[in-house]
Amino acid sequence: MNVELINTGSELLLGRTLNTHQQWLCRRLSDHGYLVARQVCVPDTGTSIQQAVREALDRADIIIVTGGLGPTSDDITRELIADLFQKPLRQDPAIVAGLREFFARRNRPMAESNLVQAMVPEGAIVLPNPNGTAPGLAMKVEAGGSKIEDGTGANTPSSILHPRSPRWLIMLPGPPRELHPMFTNHVLPLLQREMPTETFICRTLRTTGLGESALQEMIAAPLSQLVSAGLQLGYCARPGEVDVRLAARGPTANRIVGEAADIVQDLLAKFIFAEEDDELETVIVRTLTAGRLTLALAESCTGGCIAHRITNVPGASAVLLAGMVTYANVAKTKFVGVRPETLAAHGAVSEAVCREMAEGVRRETGADFSIAVTGIAGPTGGSPEKPVGTVFIGVSSSSGTVVSKNLNRYEREAFKQITAQQALELLRRSITG
Amino acid sequence: MNVELINTGSELLLGRTLNTHQQWLCRRLSDHGYLVARQVCVPDTGTSIQQAVREALDRADIIIVTGGLGPTSDDITRELIADLFQKPLRQDPAIVAGLREFFARRNRPMAESNLVQAMVPEGAIVLPNPNGTAPGLAMKVEAGGSKIEDGTGANTPSSILHPRSPRWLIMLPGPPRELHPMFTNHVLPLLQREMPTETFICRTLRTTGLGESALQEMIAAPLSQLVSAGLQLGYCARPGEVDVRLAARGPTANRIVGEAADIVQDLLAKFIFAEEDDELETVIVRTLTAGRLTLALAESCTGGCIAHRITNVPGASAVLLAGMVTYANVAKTKFVGVRPETLAAHGAVSEAVCREMAEGVRRETGADFSIAVTGIAGPTGGSPEKPVGTVFIGVSSSSGTVVSKNLNRYEREAFKQITAQQALELLRRSITG
Repeated sequence: MNVELINTGSELLLGRTLNTHQQWLCRRLSDHGYLVARQVCVPDTGTSIQQAVREALDRADIIIVTGGLGPTSDDITRELIADLFQKPLRQDPAIVAGLREFFARRNRPMAESNLVQAMVPEGAIVLPNPNGTAPGLAMKVEAGGSKIEDGTGANTPSSILHPRSPRWLIMLPGPPRELHPMFTNHVLPLLQREMPTETFICRTLRTTGLGESALQEMIAAPLSQLVSAGLQLGYCARPGEVDVRLAARGPTANRIVGEAADIVQDLLAKFIFAEEDDELETVIVRTLTAGRLTLALAESCTGGCIAHRITNVPGASAVLLAGMVTYANVAKTKFVGVRPETLAAHGAVSEAVCREMAEGVRRETGADFSIAVTGIAGPTGGSPEKPVGTVFIGVSSSSGTVVSKNLNRYEREAFKQITAQQALELLRRSITG
Repeated sequence: MNVELINTGSELLLGRTLNTHQQWLCRRLSDHGYLVARQVCVPDTGTSIQQAVREALDRADIIIVTGGLGPTSDDITRELIADLFQKPLRQDPAIVAGLREFFARRNRPMAESNLVQAMVPEGAIVLPNPNGTAPGLAMKVEAGGSKIEDGTGANTPSSILHPRSPRWLIMLPGPPRELHPMFTNHVLPLLQREMPTETFICRTLRTTGLGESALQEMIAAPLSQLVSAGLQLGYCARPGEVDVRLAARGPTANRIVGEAADIVQDLLAKFIFAEEDDELETVIVRTLTAGRLTLALAESCTGGCIAHRITNVPGASAVLLAGMVTYANVAKTKFVGVRPETLAAHGAVSEAVCREMAEGVRRETGADFSIAVTGIAGPTGGSPEKPVGTVFIGVSSSSGTVVSKNLNRYEREAFKQITAQQALELLRRSITG
C-alpha cells in the first residue's frame, strides 16, 4: 500500500510555517504498515494542487491531502479536487447544523463564508471534526471511474491508461489539533477497513546513553538471523537518544518482532527508557507519581529546560515541588544553600558545587529526589581547564548523591537539550535503581 | 526564478525525522526573491531521487537537493545525479587533503569510505564544508547540454524537448549545522551571481498582542494603494504572534517597502517587537543588557518555559539572576515570599498571589524587573470560576507592579508557549515604557 502525502499551503513554501504534518502522518502510517513513498508540498493555487493530485494518482494507492479546507479565500482544496474528478459539490445539511451549533456554543455569530465547509463532493465520506469547523473528506477513486484532465487540456482518463485497483483520496484540515484526532479516529480505521495491509507489526524501543554506531554494534549480529527471516531493523538518532524500530509483515510478524524485542531488551536493558511515543519526562512523572515520590530541580546552564520538559507532562504538579534556575552565584547560595567557600574554591562549574546544589534543593524543598546541573553552555565563558560544553549533573536522594561530568560540545540550544536528556536519564536510573 | 527543493531521506518518510530544511531554506530563498514552487521528499533509493530531479528539470530554474552526500551506503545522491547527467566522477585532491586534515585535527583515523565524499561530477563547483566531511556541489545544467534518460528507458534529451535557459542543480549535505552556513556563505552568493533576480526587497515586522484578522483590519486599507503599486503583503500567524511580510520587486521596490513599513510601524507601533528573525526573548535580553538591568522570574503554570526561552539567548547570564518554578504552594511561600493568608484567601491562581510572586521574587533577588505567572495549564484542575486556561501574569519593577488576567484555552504545551509569549511581551512593554 503506497501512500503519497500532499501538503498544501503557500506559507509552507515561503518558509513561514514548519511542516509538522509530514513527520506526524508518516510516523503513524509507517507504524501501521502503510509506506509513504513520496511527500509533496505545493502552494494554494489551482494548477499546482490539481497537478500534484494527478501525478500521485499514477503512483499511489492512497493519497492524503492536507490543508485548504477552511472558510477563507485561499482554502480551495475541496473545490479543486471536486473539479478534478468532475464530482458536483452538494451542501450537507448535517454539516450545516454542526457548524451552526459550533458557533452557537461559543456565542459567536457565524459568517456565511463558513457554509463552504458544508459542501461535499458527490460520493465522498464526511470525516467529523469536533475540534474545528472544516470536516475531512474521503473519496474512493474507482479504477476506470474517474476522468482526469491531463496537463495538455485533453481529456485523458488517467485510470484507464493505468488500470488499477480502487484508490482512496483523503482530505484533512491543516490545524494539527484538528488533523491529529481526525486521522487517529477516522482515517486509520477507514484505511484498515478499506485498504488493509498484510499483518504488520511494529515496535519502537527508545534508548538513551549510547551512540547510534555503538548501539548498532551491540545488536546487529544477534539480530541477523531474524533479519534474514524478515525482520526490518531501523535506527533513528536524535539529540541524546536512539530509537530502535523493529517491524515485520505476514503471518510470522508477531513472533519475529517479539523475539527481536526480547533480544534487544536483554542486550540494551538499562539503556531503554520507553516504548513507542513515550518521552523520558513522561516515564519519570509516571514512575514518581506511582511511587508517590516528589522531585525538585536546581538548574544553572540548562536554564529551566528540565523544568519545562517535566511540566509539559499532564499531572506534573503531583510530582514537581519546585525548580530553581540559579543562574547567578548569589542565587545558588541564597536559594539552594551552596556555600560561598565552595564557590570560591571550586568555581560555579564544579563537582562540589553541583553536589551542594543537588543536596541543597532537596533539603530546602523536602523532595524525595533532586537534579542539579551546572556547566558552560557557551558560546563564551570557557577556559582551557573547563572548555565550553563542560557540565556537571547531579542526582540526590535518600540513598545518596551521584555527580557525573560530561563534555557536551554543541551549540547553545542543543547543549541545553542534550544536557537535560542526560540529567533526566540519570534521574530515571536512580529511581528505578 | 523558480526553485524546486528535493529533500532525500527514508527517515523523513518513515516519520523518524522532522524536516526542518524545508522551512529554513524556503524562508531564506523567498526573502531573497527566489520562489520555491514545489518541495518534494523522496526516499534514499535510486529511481526516486533520479525521477524527482528529472521532473524538477522540466519546471524549475534552480533545483536544490538535500541529503545523501555522506560516506555511508545509503548516501547515494552524488552518484545518482552524476549518472543522470552522464557526468564522470573524479576524485578531487583538494577535498581529499581537507578530509585527511579534518580527521587529523580530531585525532581520529579516517575510514577509507570517507573518500567517496571527494568524488566530484565533471564540471561541478565544490562548496566547502568547514563543519563536516561532505562538501556541497553545484552544477550548471546547460540548455540542450544534458541527456536525461526518461522513465521508459529510452534516451530522451529532456532539455531538447523543453529548451530552456541554463539551470543550476545544487546538492547540500543533510546535517543542519553543515547546510546552514554552506547555504548562506556559498549558495546564496552563487545564485545572486549566476541567477540574479530583479531587485527584490523584503522586510518582516513581527507583532504580538493582536490576532491575525484584527491586525489585517488595521493595515489592509491604508496599504491598499501600495499594494496596487506592487507591494506584496503577507501575514504569518504563530502561537501568540503575527509576522507582517512586506515585499516588492523592481526599481521602485525600496521606496514601496520603505513607505509600507513606515505605515505599519505607525499603525501597529506598540505591537511590533522586532524585525526579521529576532525573537521576543532576544529583544528583551538585548534591551536589558544595554541598560545594565537584571531580571528574575517566578513561574508556576509556565513551569520554566520563560526561563528556558530567556536562557536560549547567548549572554542571558548577564541579565537573569534567578528563575523560580514555584509549582507547589509551599514553594511559593518559601522561595518568593507569598503569604499563606493570601493563598488561603484567594487561591494560588489569583491576582493577589501573582502580585506577591512578582514583588517577592524581585525583593528576594534584588532584580530590576520580575515576571510572575500563575494559572491552570490543564487538562484538569479547572473550576467554573477559574476554568482551565485561566492565567494571571505580573510584571514588577521600581515603577510598580502590573497584573493582567488572560484566558488561554489551548492544550497544555500551547498554553505554556502562549502564556510565556504574553508574559515576555508584558515585560517588554514595561521595559520600553
